[in-house]
Amino acid sequence: MSSTQPPQSQPTSVQAILNVPDLIGRKRNGEAHSAIDLNALIGGYVRGEVPDYQVAAWLMAVFFRGMTPQETGDLTLSMAHSGDMFDLSSLPRTVDKHSTGGVGDKTSLVLTPMLAALGLTVAKMSGRGLAHTGGTIDKLESIPGWNSELSDEAFLKQAREVGLALVGQSKNLAPADGLLYALRDVTATVDCLPLIASSIMSKKLASGAQTIVLDVKVGAGAFMKTVSDGEELARAMVEIGRHAGRNVRAVLTDMQAPLGRLAGNSLEVVEALATLRGEGPQDLHELCIELAVEALTAAGFPDNARARAEATLYDGSALSRFRAFVEAQGGDPRYVDDPGLLDVAPGRAEVTAQAGGFLSAIDALSVGRAVLALGGGRERKGEAIDHGVGVELLVKPGEAVVVGQPLLRVYHREERGLAWALELLSAGVSVGPDVPRAAPLILGRIG
Amino acid sequence: MSSTQPPQSQPTSVQAILNVPDLIGRKRNGEAHSAIDLNALIGGYVRGEVPDYQVAAWLMAVFFRGMTPQETGDLTLSMAHSGDMFDLSSLPRTVDKHSTGGVGDKTSLVLTPMLAALGLTVAKMSGRGLAHTGGTIDKLESIPGWNSELSDEAFLKQAREVGLALVGQSKNLAPADGLLYALRDVTATVDCLPLIASSIMSKKLASGAQTIVLDVKVGAGAFMKTVSDGEELARAMVEIGRHAGRNVRAVLTDMQAPLGRLAGNSLEVVEALATLRGEGPQDLHELCIELAVEALTAAGFPDNARARAEATLYDGSALSRFRAFVEAQGGDPRYVDDPGLLDVAPGRAEVTAQAGGFLSAIDALSVGRAVLALGGGRERKGEAIDHGVGVELLVKPGEAVVVGQPLLRVYHREERGLAWALELLSAGVSVGPDVPRAAPLILGRIG
Repeated sequence: MSSTQPPQSQPTSVQAILNVPDLIGRKRNGEAHSAIDLNALIGGYVRGEVPDYQVAAWLMAVFFRGMTPQETGDLTLSMAHSGDMFDLSSLPRTVDKHSTGGVGDKTSLVLTPMLAALGLTVAKMSGRGLAHTGGTIDKLESIPGWNSELSDEAFLKQAREVGLALVGQSKNLAPADGLLYALRDVTATVDCLPLIASSIMSKKLASGAQTIVLDVKVGAGAFMKTVSDGEELARAMVEIGRHAGRNVRAVLTDMQAPLGRLAGNSLEVVEALATLRGEGPQDLHELCIELAVEALTAAGFPDNARARAEATLYDGSALSRFRAFVEAQGGDPRYVDDPGLLDVAPGRAEVTAQAGGFLSAIDALSVGRAVLALGGGRERKGEAIDHGVGVELLVKPGEAVVVGQPLLRVYHREERGLAWALELLSAGVSVGPDVPRAAPLILGRIG
Repeated sequence: MSSTQPPQSQPTSVQAILNVPDLIGRKRNGEAHSAIDLNALIGGYVRGEVPDYQVAAWLMAVFFRGMTPQETGDLTLSMAHSGDMFDLSSLPRTVDKHSTGGVGDKTSLVLTPMLAALGLTVAKMSGRGLAHTGGTIDKLESIPGWNSELSDEAFLKQAREVGLALVGQSKNLAPADGLLYALRDVTATVDCLPLIASSIMSKKLASGAQTIVLDVKVGAGAFMKTVSDGEELARAMVEIGRHAGRNVRAVLTDMQAPLGRLAGNSLEVVEALATLRGEGPQDLHELCIELAVEALTAAGFPDNARARAEATLYDGSALSRFRAFVEAQGGDPRYVDDPGLLDVAPGRAEVTAQAGGFLSAIDALSVGRAVLALGGGRERKGEAIDHGVGVELLVKPGEAVVVGQPLLRVYHREERGLAWALELLSAGVSVGPDVPRAAPLILGRIG
């Protein structure tokens, strides 16, 4: 009888099958959600049937109560299925790579052609840079003609033929993640492990690769400040992959100082090309091999993986894949053959040592912000960037320096943002009397 | 420089002075808010500058982290000041009473004329009934002509002259509470002590009385299920009152069975009038005296309080105040003199004992729902109600019964909702072989 019903606002279709306050209350009380509940919540949210305020309360309850691996896996699948699921099943041995965000991280430019040369297929969606972190698409656009937009057919065809195709991120890839991320950002619920893990993995699952290798950055310049936080995130993401039937492995890597010696779009392509010729900086070279080994292992080809991965950087096979990939997407291959052709901003300025001793730290965040200040990054989506500006590390942490020695070189255009960039860099560099303890690059492996 | 600013959405005026995600994060981390922060949050919310989703996340963080007494007091003041603050400072010895909600609770009808007869001034705002709980305004409207709408001037004048004026709740009384309550209701954040205490007290503070006496109901039929929960709530509310410079005392009372023997609007006026003549049921009589003593004590007149309070029910002084009050607000005083004139629905039906023994329980919630089913309450705001229907307890818990003995009488109109009401009542009544442990009516006093 109607008299037993409490007063209610108009029910929408999702509320007819899902009592949202009840669901929030269950999480608040520490109960685990079923896959059906999570699907209804996420689906209802994306369709606009569950309002922001209920999801916001739920996110905060998740912050306090956490989620079981099963729940995190189910949440991630719900988020992945909220938009298009890219079907890469027609391609052999597909592999994808994700980094949790670094400065001067041109790893994808080197790793993806290595993987193609090793017989895996990389059909990958990449993002553009925002704030102090760069984006692979921006870096590749330093090469004249290179185009990030391919039809689905052209994308799959190129991946099959070249072994490597790279496009900008589709707008309908895991739309639930975009909505949830924007909401978390304004409700103090960003810093929550299952939500971070599901955010990253939902897009990776929707992107369709069978094997996923993750580079979890750890350190002052990264989202994960400690190795144990990084391990926890890596474990959660590997678990999500397993739950979804994918092969996932993760490497924890140090992100105190920028990777390699160059930061900025054209400059990073220059350094990536040197690495593809076997002449790259030690840390970048080592990380690319490490990630290639993990990818081969995850994909089921662990035999002799390290030697085979190293070989691709010395026998020209990775470089030739990169050249073919650039050409297939409209880029001028002469820039691959002669990196000197790449546009590098002509202005030069240097930060010099104020004291002698040992370089103890170069803060990655400061370098990223300096590139942004110079015009090499964007503060808001859609802004144009200057591919030619950037920062070169003339000295790496642990090396000895004398007073007045140049430590960092700035590549600027008409002094745009120069004073601010120099200030940021000066503040981010530390010279001390003692040899700093060398942090290993690879801090752990999960998989 | 602009390059140091992170991307942001358009700031509104409150966001220019208050970083809401940061405030949510501080509560999430267990920090206490300042009065300034709480004022900015609540003020911004009421002005529509802080969106629901941020307040929802904050409420859930409050659920997990709680609030200090200082914070709860500051929050309550912010909520009270979000709308009109009624100024009763021109009246002497103002007193207000609040009950956390009961069934058959006609206490206000008896207590307020008692307080007026004792020399205190009651200028009170009351609510209407919703769902299974009744409202004082609805009960008084059983008396033909009685009108709950008075201008502010008439309200103050009547309070000064009669000692008692009662009006419907102003729409702009603590609007923050209405908004927060609606949001809590759909985000699983109702059940949180500082939020419950601030919700009740914000309206009481805005209502302006210097002395506030609280009746905190405890038991299966009440919001607070245990004495210790009730004590915690009472303590929080007394503390809020102190923080705001008011005199507040609370009584914890048992709310397993309905108070008195009658539930339903006209029926409760009949019982209130009997009590004002010194002929009321023991529990209602005792509770009214208890609350009057607490009010006198809180207001600073503790001497001989119990005897003075009792006297008002036997010397006719409380009844004559009630009559003057009814007449002042347009009600026909003949109904006070002769309660038999009140409209009571003519239909009668009874619930009888299925077994002999002792009546162990009459569930207050079932009685409240039965009255609602009969048409004596409303499911949605604004619905008309039938003042004449209701339920009479023919036997009170602890009394012996024989098989077939009538336990409850239903007053219905043309069998509307009768079958459902009888079903609810039958399910809510229990007869057992043993004399049930008698629960005292007064479970505690806080102040």
